[in-house]
Amino acid sequence: MKQQTKQLWGAAFSQTPSEAVISFAAGRDVAPIPASDTKLIPYDIWLNEAHCLMLAKQGIIPVTDAKKILKGLSEIEKLASAGKFILDPKKEDVHTNIESWLTKKYGIEAAGKLHTARSRNDQVVTDVRMYLRDQVLAFIDGTTQLAIALLSQAKKHEGTVMPGFTHHQHAMVTTYGHMLTAFAAMMVRDAKRFSLWFDLHNSSPLGSSTSYGTLFPLDRAYSAKLLGFDGAQVNSLDPVTNRWEPEADLAYAIVILMNHLSLMAQTLILLSTPEFGMTTVADQFSTGSSVMPQKKNPDPLEVIKGKAAYAQGTLTGLLGIGKSNFIGYNRDSQWTKYMVMDVISECILAPVVMKGVIESLTVNKEVMLAWSKKGFIGATSLMEQITGVFGLPMRKAKVIIEKGVKYSKGHEIVTFEALQQALTEENITIAITASDVAAWQDPERIIGLTKVFGGPGIQAGEKAVRILSKDLKDLTAWSTKMQHALHLAHEATIHAISKLISGGK
Amino acid sequence: MKQQTKQLWGAAFSQTPSEAVISFAAGRDVAPIPASDTKLIPYDIWLNEAHCLMLAKQGIIPVTDAKKILKGLSEIEKLASAGKFILDPKKEDVHTNIESWLTKKYGIEAAGKLHTARSRNDQVVTDVRMYLRDQVLAFIDGTTQLAIALLSQAKKHEGTVMPGFTHHQHAMVTTYGHMLTAFAAMMVRDAKRFSLWFDLHNSSPLGSSTSYGTLFPLDRAYSAKLLGFDGAQVNSLDPVTNRWEPEADLAYAIVILMNHLSLMAQTLILLSTPEFGMTTVADQFSTGSSVMPQKKNPDPLEVIKGKAAYAQGTLTGLLGIGKSNFIGYNRDSQWTKYMVMDVISECILAPVVMKGVIESLTVNKEVMLAWSKKGFIGATSLMEQITGVFGLPMRKAKVIIEKGVKYSKGHEIVTFEALQQALTEENITIAITASDVAAWQDPERIIGLTKVFGGPGIQAGEKAVRILSKDLKDLTAWSTKMQHALHLAHEATIHAISKLISGGK
Amino acid sequence: MKQQTKQLWGAAFSQTPSEAVISFAAGRDVAPIPASDTKLIPYDIWLNEAHCLMLAKQGIIPVTDAKKILKGLSEIEKLASAGKFILDPKKEDVHTNIESWLTKKYGIEAAGKLHTARSRNDQVVTDVRMYLRDQVLAFIDGTTQLAIALLSQAKKHEGTVMPGFTHHQHAMVTTYGHMLTAFAAMMVRDAKRFSLWFDLHNSSPLGSSTSYGTLFPLDRAYSAKLLGFDGAQVNSLDPVTNRWEPEADLAYAIVILMNHLSLMAQTLILLSTPEFGMTTVADQFSTGSSVMPQKKNPDPLEVIKGKAAYAQGTLTGLLGIGKSNFIGYNRDSQWTKYMVMDVISECILAPVVMKGVIESLTVNKEVMLAWSKKGFIGATSLMEQITGVFGLPMRKAKVIIEKGVKYSKGHEIVTFEALQQALTEENITIAITASDVAAWQDPERIIGLTKVFGGPGIQAGEKAVRILSKDLKDLTAWSTKMQHALHLAHEATIHAISKLISGGK
Amino acid sequence: MKQQTKQLWGAAFSQTPSEAVISFAAGRDVAPIPASDTKLIPYDIWLNEAHCLMLAKQGIIPVTDAKKILKGLSEIEKLASAGKFILDPKKEDVHTNIESWLTKKYGIEAAGKLHTARSRNDQVVTDVRMYLRDQVLAFIDGTTQLAIALLSQAKKHEGTVMPGFTHHQHAMVTTYGHMLTAFAAMMVRDAKRFSLWFDLHNSSPLGSSTSYGTLFPLDRAYSAKLLGFDGAQVNSLDPVTNRWEPEADLAYAIVILMNHLSLMAQTLILLSTPEFGMTTVADQFSTGSSVMPQKKNPDPLEVIKGKAAYAQGTLTGLLGIGKSNFIGYNRDSQWTKYMVMDVISECILAPVVMKGVIESLTVNKEVMLAWSKKGFIGATSLMEQITGVFGLPMRKAKVIIEKGVKYSKGHEIVTFEALQQALTEENITIAITASDVAAWQDPERIIGLTKVFGGPGIQAGEKAVRILSKDLKDLTAWSTKMQHALHLAHEATIHAISKLISGGK
Repeated sequence: MKQQTKQLWGAAFSQTPSEAVISFAAGRDVAPIPASDTKLIPYDIWLNEAHCLMLAKQGIIPVTDAKKILKGLSEIEKLASAGKFILDPKKEDVHTNIESWLTKKYGIEAAGKLHTARSRNDQVVTDVRMYLRDQVLAFIDGTTQLAIALLSQAKKHEGTVMPGFTHHQHAMVTTYGHMLTAFAAMMVRDAKRFSLWFDLHNSSPLGSSTSYGTLFPLDRAYSAKLLGFDGAQVNSLDPVTNRWEPEADLAYAIVILMNHLSLMAQTLILLSTPEFGMTTVADQFSTGSSVMPQKKNPDPLEVIKGKAAYAQGTLTGLLGIGKSNFIGYNRDSQWTKYMVMDVISECILAPVVMKGVIESLTVNKEVMLAWSKKGFIGATSLMEQITGVFGLPMRKAKVIIEKGVKYSKGHEIVTFEALQQALTEENITIAITASDVAAWQDPERIIGLTKVFGGPGIQAGEKAVRILSKDLKDLTAWSTKMQHALHLAHEATIHAISKLISGGK
Repeated sequence: MKQQTKQLWGAAFSQTPSEAVISFAAGRDVAPIPASDTKLIPYDIWLNEAHCLMLAKQGIIPVTDAKKILKGLSEIEKLASAGKFILDPKKEDVHTNIESWLTKKYGIEAAGKLHTARSRNDQVVTDVRMYLRDQVLAFIDGTTQLAIALLSQAKKHEGTVMPGFTHHQHAMVTTYGHMLTAFAAMMVRDAKRFSLWFDLHNSSPLGSSTSYGTLFPLDRAYSAKLLGFDGAQVNSLDPVTNRWEPEADLAYAIVILMNHLSLMAQTLILLSTPEFGMTTVADQFSTGSSVMPQKKNPDPLEVIKGKAAYAQGTLTGLLGIGKSNFIGYNRDSQWTKYMVMDVISECILAPVVMKGVIESLTVNKEVMLAWSKKGFIGATSLMEQITGVFGLPMRKAKVIIEKGVKYSKGHEIVTFEALQQALTEENITIAITASDVAAWQDPERIIGLTKVFGGPGIQAGEKAVRILSKDLKDLTAWSTKMQHALHLAHEATIHAISKLISGGK
Repeated sequence: MKQQTKQLWGAAFSQTPSEAVISFAAGRDVAPIPASDTKLIPYDIWLNEAHCLMLAKQGIIPVTDAKKILKGLSEIEKLASAGKFILDPKKEDVHTNIESWLTKKYGIEAAGKLHTARSRNDQVVTDVRMYLRDQVLAFIDGTTQLAIALLSQAKKHEGTVMPGFTHHQHAMVTTYGHMLTAFAAMMVRDAKRFSLWFDLHNSSPLGSSTSYGTLFPLDRAYSAKLLGFDGAQVNSLDPVTNRWEPEADLAYAIVILMNHLSLMAQTLILLSTPEFGMTTVADQFSTGSSVMPQKKNPDPLEVIKGKAAYAQGTLTGLLGIGKSNFIGYNRDSQWTKYMVMDVISECILAPVVMKGVIESLTVNKEVMLAWSKKGFIGATSLMEQITGVFGLPMRKAKVIIEKGVKYSKGHEIVTFEALQQALTEENITIAITASDVAAWQDPERIIGLTKVFGGPGIQAGEKAVRILSKDLKDLTAWSTKMQHALHLAHEATIHAISKLISGGK
Repeated sequence: MKQQTKQLWGAAFSQTPSEAVISFAAGRDVAPIPASDTKLIPYDIWLNEAHCLMLAKQGIIPVTDAKKILKGLSEIEKLASAGKFILDPKKEDVHTNIESWLTKKYGIEAAGKLHTARSRNDQVVTDVRMYLRDQVLAFIDGTTQLAIALLSQAKKHEGTVMPGFTHHQHAMVTTYGHMLTAFAAMMVRDAKRFSLWFDLHNSSPLGSSTSYGTLFPLDRAYSAKLLGFDGAQVNSLDPVTNRWEPEADLAYAIVILMNHLSLMAQTLILLSTPEFGMTTVADQFSTGSSVMPQKKNPDPLEVIKGKAAYAQGTLTGLLGIGKSNFIGYNRDSQWTKYMVMDVISECILAPVVMKGVIESLTVNKEVMLAWSKKGFIGATSLMEQITGVFGLPMRKAKVIIEKGVKYSKGHEIVTFEALQQALTEENITIAITASDVAAWQDPERIIGLTKVFGGPGIQAGEKAVRILSKDLKDLTAWSTKMQHALHLAHEATIHAISKLISGGK
């Protein structure tokens, strides 16, 4: 989209940011948003084809007219593929543009029959649903790709010890791989959530007309099949009235995805500060300053956070449109089209960008390890060992270690002497040695001792990667199957057109 | 909850509002919201039992101590069932209350071992998830019950002709049954959406501890099974960090449900105005005024709308808490507990109230029919008949009928004369008679001619009811199975306790 | 913007919708959103001029260089006015475009000094603030114009009796003028709310640079004055960190305005249904259907409602961006620019459209009057008269009239007989006559008797119009003064440039 | 509220958290939310008094009855002050409770006249407005107190050098005092924003009755004056219809305040991590862990962030209730009462807590200073010095310093050698010395050289403190005056009652 971008910064960088990142992060300062119906052109063509085939099959319009219409639609499809079907702003929308083109070319006697037994209401609802369906699959694709990248890095870093945080404070020892696996688990759930959209909305509104059906003997199941839907919707008032719900369901799934990505973003931003110094964001995912010569800013990560807020706003808007309506179509809902298209455009690249950030990130293992020895981070593990080895009630062991921490002021781990003092005060005698005390607070040793499923231990980590990889395989298989099914449906439509056009009658 | 409520109005009513409706609509003017953890008591007991059983099974704590703890928990369970386990506000939360009770009764040597290998973080996350799970099932119950009631009324009114609206204006003829079936279709989808929560969240966080696992050899699969989960969560950082996501997923499903109910509410409010007069809300779902003697207000329906907005606000809050966090637990997320509990309390009765409104509603058929003959509501059907019978392009027929409407000013249907004038102007000759013109605009005749799947025709309506009833049967079966599975899991926990306590060791 | 739009409907209309309405209601189906920085061009030029003048005045850059820069800026200003300064998408933003143009024309030795002692951060924050300031004034303009139109209609309809509603039910008698005056009062408050933006945000961020000031001896008060600000902001970290707050404050005022407009919209939509029939929306504010020949839909009013929801979403997004940040600029906030610009573009015409709707609306007085005699709408006034004339406690009178309503079933007003029965039952004897009972429920008589300030009586209505007209005069005067002050500041900048360029040095 | 709280942690702490903090941060785990109308008792009494005085003054009810009612209200006032007027949940709300009490004590002949010429609608709207008014003043109080504390600390730390951040990265040098002054500037603006509520909403709805006035000759100006309002609202439909707007306006101001506090919270949380180590949160504003012995968590700061999200959700709910309504009261709006009361309760202590955190915070100056010498943080100042001293165009100087940074890899500041290499490459000769290069990057020297208004320099800082202190003085004076005015109005009501009761008649 943007080429040879010239920025006023960059000399301190060894690698220029990739075009994809710039496109994601650049925003709309110098870039317009195209007219929304350009996105609907292919869907409206397909819908028109399916509707026309059905009308002809049912004898609602003469085959001779249907042939002309379908021929015209094929021509438009070719033009559109070549980027040459440009929407005329004087004609209200994509529907009017297509019908006008057909009318101009083939006359009102033929083209004037295309809109039989339908309404713009069911047309746009169906178009948007087909568009959304493709976007759902694209989000699944981006999300699963990111998950795969996360798991690949997780495996590589299954033994990379780092501090585990709660409340932004050192909690217990963990591994960088453990954290990445957590991120991957979120992505798997997000991909699953996207896929559930199909359970709710892959049915065809076409034939609902204004909401109240039609006198013509439509075969809605046939057109639904041609369009790759599971079937026709069971009530014609439902889809037209709820022209915000499939939109909201997708927007909601995007919001959750963006929240998860914003978590990753904020975490990496912090780990990449000079103070944390645990990771370094690659140059190609950084930008500079218009004035400060030394700056490398993790802009793409910040943009993800900003867009997460934006996505939440979009959801609020969509849900607000769906509240307290009177039955039947109301124009309020037209704005759902722009909202959902915008949020998709803004967010579709987010998992792709995050994948790039993760894969190119420098992990400063020695810094991570050094911090893993500080701030009494091993205290909980020490407490657990004391509990487990000497059979103390956990509540007693906790009091002892709390005191141990208190008496070790000035140190980074609980000292043997402090522990002794605590034990004495609590009247507890256990055969613990100075080397136990040190060893049980050693981060790598702790990781070695951690076996619990879901935890940061090596075997547990590998098991988690295996399980999540299996889930991803299933999700990817489902997504591929679904994409293929849609492709086949389109092929079948094209085939039916050829057959009709070349047919005798 | 509220008994013998005395209002300052009501003499004009023949039936007093039911207690359930008052409870839903009364609000919090004179009613407090109880402490949130009272809702978690049964879940925290169950969790403690499962955790303790697992600790004993794995040899992490001695069986003798486990017996004492489990005995104590059984005692608490009995107290709680009798409403006698009252939370002491001096003890931070339900967890502290239970552990303190156990410690007081059985001493720190035993009770002090209960909290081994876990953290309040995984405890509360697990408790809330168990609580949410039950609420999901309750919402499915309310939603499917409402759908059944809607379909029952729809069947009864399959031939009750009424105006179909778009833009609040008369669009085409429909039936009251068709509208109710649309509502039912929404409820079926909503019930389905609730059920998908299980696909994403019915796995156990227990054993995640602080997020970073534990050195103890937990059997997380065992405790997960005892608690009725599908298994243990695959990464321990994930559930603790995302302590807003199962909450948001449920809140979102509630928002969509409330939006649909607000649509029904607003529609019935309008149809019940003196001006529309098509329906009458029953006295038991109406309230009066403190000053106006004649008023019967559809308050419960308005309350549904207000709560729909409230639910959207809750969702905004939950999603905001989930944005741009740093990895690991942060206290921000505690407020998700209150938010999700409040939105559940406010909305759980909404489908029940709507069911009552629908079932007790008076449908003024003659008013509906009278309005179905006005405002050129049959014009589209007339156009379709002309198109179908005489083979005119729909676009031409539309221009003719538009003119027909224009020339019929002062009438409520297109007149034969007006149509003739339009046909003459457009140079079209068709063999249409005056009686055709009238008949094709007759509402009952139109419904009789409408056969399309999903539409308001009688057969289509019956088919829709059959399909949706089948969906409801499946959903109800699933929900019953799930409730049973949870019940069995709890039974198994109780059984395991008995076995352990009575066991030799 | 759009000319000769061709729709597929309209033959039933006697007047075509005005271009302004189409532009407001058309949406983005076939219309792109231009690059955002095109809106900032005039502001960035002005800012550059002021900054450069200040740098020269303070001796920070040589006057000779300043002259070149200012000459260049004047040239750009001319190009921009003629629509010929087109942003090059290869140059990141408006700032880079302008500086590049200057550098190309006047060389880096001069143009390279323009960015001295500032950052893009304070530049964009200042630009946007100047842009927002103008939008605030534009909204005040639209809002006060609408209020004036409402008051003008209110005066005309001070005696047009109509039903007053609560809960969508007939409550008491009112006038159409009373309702319009309520709308006007909201508009006055909204205009006031817009004006308060100036109290909080009309101060200059310029000179904050990256947030941490600069070593150069800037005269921030001077550049602030040139740009029409009340002064320079007192802390340089504040505006850069809060690059969402002036945006949110304006968006919030828009949300409230849109809520009020959505109230008017929904009210008029309902009053214009065939069932209510009390008002008729003019053809130029209606649209047709692609299929139903008879339809006239109040689309612009529905669009207002849709955009009200959209505006709320935008506010959610802006506020989300402002939560839980770390001090200093973060890129997240860049998206506030697009959000606030979009919501302004979508909503700025809303009061204009509403003004047109109100002014062209047909008020069906006889329908209003007829409904004002139905549904016991005079019962409360009857009760008040009985209370007042006969000195009964209001609570007793209410019981009597409630019974009166009950016993008048089948009638539209409380009958004398029913009242007598109620009085007898309550053991109350008052000297009321049958003609009193009828008269005290007569709508026109009721309005005649209503004198209270704020109410629907004629004198009260006229007083309200006078008070609100006075408020509007004050608001308009303030707005005009402010616009003039900004104009003068710009003039002063231009003058200072001429003086410098023509100056000796 | 909570006493002797027992937690399961705390031995590692030297100071226990203050009760106020616990109350703010504890949440609702073991604490109920009281019935909402308990908050309205004093306002409803006052309103009843004013209404009754006005009715008597106007001769609408007999003075003898008014005396009884007022006597009863005085008795209720005494009971309420002593906490002994408990709302009976069997009586719908506070209004019914008070009227029932009066009726029981003084009979329906007297008490039954109190509700003359009003409705619960205007009663509750007025009550809530009076309640909100007091809350606005309380928020101004909390906000200005916090600002004063911030400025006091800012003065103390005017020379405490620390890194200034953008994008979470080191940007330029600043001072801790500069940052605190930024926070104070936000608080001043927030206090101002709260005060603007009075500009929009301090007018009396009382006398609007159901929205449509009354036949009785009310003196609304008189009752408005008694209640401390600026006057009576000019249209009776406006306040009842917009029963969400004063609520939303306050909630919005709270949201902005909470956003600012969440910024402070997040900033302090980060600065207090072991990695940053620049500040330490005091023990009394920290909590421990149920399992990790070493933890000190900045919980109150996190709670502020959580509540900021919660507040945003509340605003969304309130605004949603205000959208697309039909004119007149609708019950939907009752929920605004609970929403606004809850958000006030949750947030009112937030500035108090932040004040405590700031005042007790340990500022680790040496750590701040050490980090101020790292990461090329002085590069921008060096560039500015080169630009200023040697007259280079800023753009050229920037390229040189960018290269200087690049060639200084491995160092923390730009080295003399690296700079030389950069200058050579760019063919620029300037008489810069090695000691200049070092000095111009020295943080304390930089602060010394920074004079610009609004920046981190000492004099600029002191000037900012002076200006903001002046603003605070004005705000506090206004708030005190307003509180006094309300107090006087209440006194005047009491006085009028005494006079009436003791009066001859």
